[in-house]
Amino acid sequence: MLNSHIRYDASADALMLLDQRHLPVREDWFAVTDLATTVYALQVMVIRGAPAIGVTAAYGCYFCARETLRETGGAQGWEEALKARLSTLVEARPTAVNLRWGVEHLAAMWDERPGIGLPALATVWLDRARNMQLEDEEINKAMGAFGANLLADGDRVMTHCNAGALATAGWGTALGVIYSAVEQGKTISVIANETRPFLQGARLTAWELHKSGVPVTVACDNACALLMKKGLVDKVVVGADRIAANGDAANKIGTYGVALLAKAHGIPFYVAAPVSTFDLRCPSGDLIPIEERTPREVTHPTGESAIVPDGVPVYNYAFDVTPAELIAGIVTERGVLKAPYTESIARIVARPY
Amino acid sequence: MLNSHIRYDASADALMLLDQRHLPVREDWFAVTDLATTVYALQVMVIRGAPAIGVTAAYGCYFCARETLRETGGAQGWEEALKARLSTLVEARPTAVNLRWGVEHLAAMWDERPGIGLPALATVWLDRARNMQLEDEEINKAMGAFGANLLADGDRVMTHCNAGALATAGWGTALGVIYSAVEQGKTISVIANETRPFLQGARLTAWELHKSGVPVTVACDNACALLMKKGLVDKVVVGADRIAANGDAANKIGTYGVALLAKAHGIPFYVAAPVSTFDLRCPSGDLIPIEERTPREVTHPTGESAIVPDGVPVYNYAFDVTPAELIAGIVTERGVLKAPYTESIARIVARPY
Repeated sequence: MLNSHIRYDASADALMLLDQRHLPVREDWFAVTDLATTVYALQVMVIRGAPAIGVTAAYGCYFCARETLRETGGAQGWEEALKARLSTLVEARPTAVNLRWGVEHLAAMWDERPGIGLPALATVWLDRARNMQLEDEEINKAMGAFGANLLADGDRVMTHCNAGALATAGWGTALGVIYSAVEQGKTISVIANETRPFLQGARLTAWELHKSGVPVTVACDNACALLMKKGLVDKVVVGADRIAANGDAANKIGTYGVALLAKAHGIPFYVAAPVSTFDLRCPSGDLIPIEERTPREVTHPTGESAIVPDGVPVYNYAFDVTPAELIAGIVTERGVLKAPYTESIARIVARPY
Repeated sequence: MLNSHIRYDASADALMLLDQRHLPVREDWFAVTDLATTVYALQVMVIRGAPAIGVTAAYGCYFCARETLRETGGAQGWEEALKARLSTLVEARPTAVNLRWGVEHLAAMWDERPGIGLPALATVWLDRARNMQLEDEEINKAMGAFGANLLADGDRVMTHCNAGALATAGWGTALGVIYSAVEQGKTISVIANETRPFLQGARLTAWELHKSGVPVTVACDNACALLMKKGLVDKVVVGADRIAANGDAANKIGTYGVALLAKAHGIPFYVAAPVSTFDLRCPSGDLIPIEERTPREVTHPTGESAIVPDGVPVYNYAFDVTPAELIAGIVTERGVLKAPYTESIARIVARPY
């Protein structure tokens, strides 16, 4: 529905990202050309969203290799220099498992090629990053097809944050489910929670749905309970940044509250996320580290005037964890998982493609 | 703790209001001198908060009388002209019962004085407005004394919106409970939900608590569930704009969600409101009209950049209703009411002072 917001420009040898900090006001492009700009783009959220972070991480590995090549010329010791760069990259953001997954996935390709030279490794990684981008969109379309069957014609779907085309290489996870349902001919409308502090719902979800012709209404996060009580919400579909082996799902701050409120109103709450989001090394959501971000996101909602008096501290946890028992189903590219999740997740992760 | 933010300036014959739209950035004063400026101040929320609206309404009646005197010179027909003005005043905001209560209270004084001339009525009303202002602060201190007994030393109290000195003639309702507990020597800290869209929590509650030396931390509304889960919230105390005869309480949008989340985490949820907030003519919260306000409050959080794409609609319900069964107690100036509320409310309203 949208043109890709992640473009590798071969002539400039740069990754061009639609700068999500400036949407919906301006459509600027941000050039990523090395490790520092990759880390910056991830940390300040030029790009965000678990699958998009994974793809950016893969390009980031390529930039690490290219930078190491420039620095060392591929002479002895380049391996250590490259590993140090990959460590810096992997720590850019702590909660999304896709960052670690992307870097580890590319590092495994290196392990599988003992004796490979640095220039060849850089080429392998760039190819992989470009393929990962294509695969991600295919994965999302597969996920969308499974998830769309959960939505009925006329459904009014609430979503939180942005798990759309802008959060992935394309199509989206939670919004992918909606786009696929619309493609099936169903009439779907969306309530986008604005999602303070970074306002991904108001700025990004509303922008891409509106551009795609899907009716969307924005609401402040705290209107959620009233809208549910008024009968305006049939289903909730959200993305996830990491899902533990037991099905507990980390996602944008506020998701856990939406899930509790959905339960109180008898509304099914679904998570849509690719299999790469499952972290089987993490047995429970309690063990997922929660990133804390700069107070400025809270105190300066649009980067202009302050809304909090000087000297008053703020909480800015970027994620929370929704316990598995609040989740009616997890939509993946290999099917919709149901409780008990410990079993269904283990089974789906083990299944060969 | 704060100097009054509502000052009648006798030399200018004007009501001076600390302009809450500009806090915490600027401390501007707004002059109310007639019906139009009273209605404007209420509608754009130069002043807000149920009890403060009640006091402003009383001054508004005085300005209506003065304006009618100027227009008619007190000649035949002034009664109709005055009644028309009072009707306009009472409709400035639909949800807060205190606006209607204030106007009806002053209208009753007129009924009790058949044959009173317009200049005398204006004087009666101005005196009443000034006394109401003093009484409101006394009421809040009485409420605070009852409510403070609900708080333990060391409690971390979450509040939503602003039910503080700035929402009343002084001291506050929900925050009055906190100020009174602090006066008792208890150590209390506060989590102020920012309270989108108008951000009363971030802007006003944080401002007045910080000025009063009470430790306060601001959080986005959607962090509520996580903060409760982390064990950072011992009690919730909020104000109310109207309470039905069965105890259902209308308050700022988001309050109902906070109450549901408090219940899910086993945290007591209290409402603090003067007896004037009870509307015995309204049997249930379902019948309380919910004001919808301009989309611009949602789309332009600080009045500067837009955060919602052009052409995308928004919901902006200003209030929601918390059902009585989620309320652990209602703190009033005559004591703390407990369920069953239909009985305890009827009893307290009937009780003579």
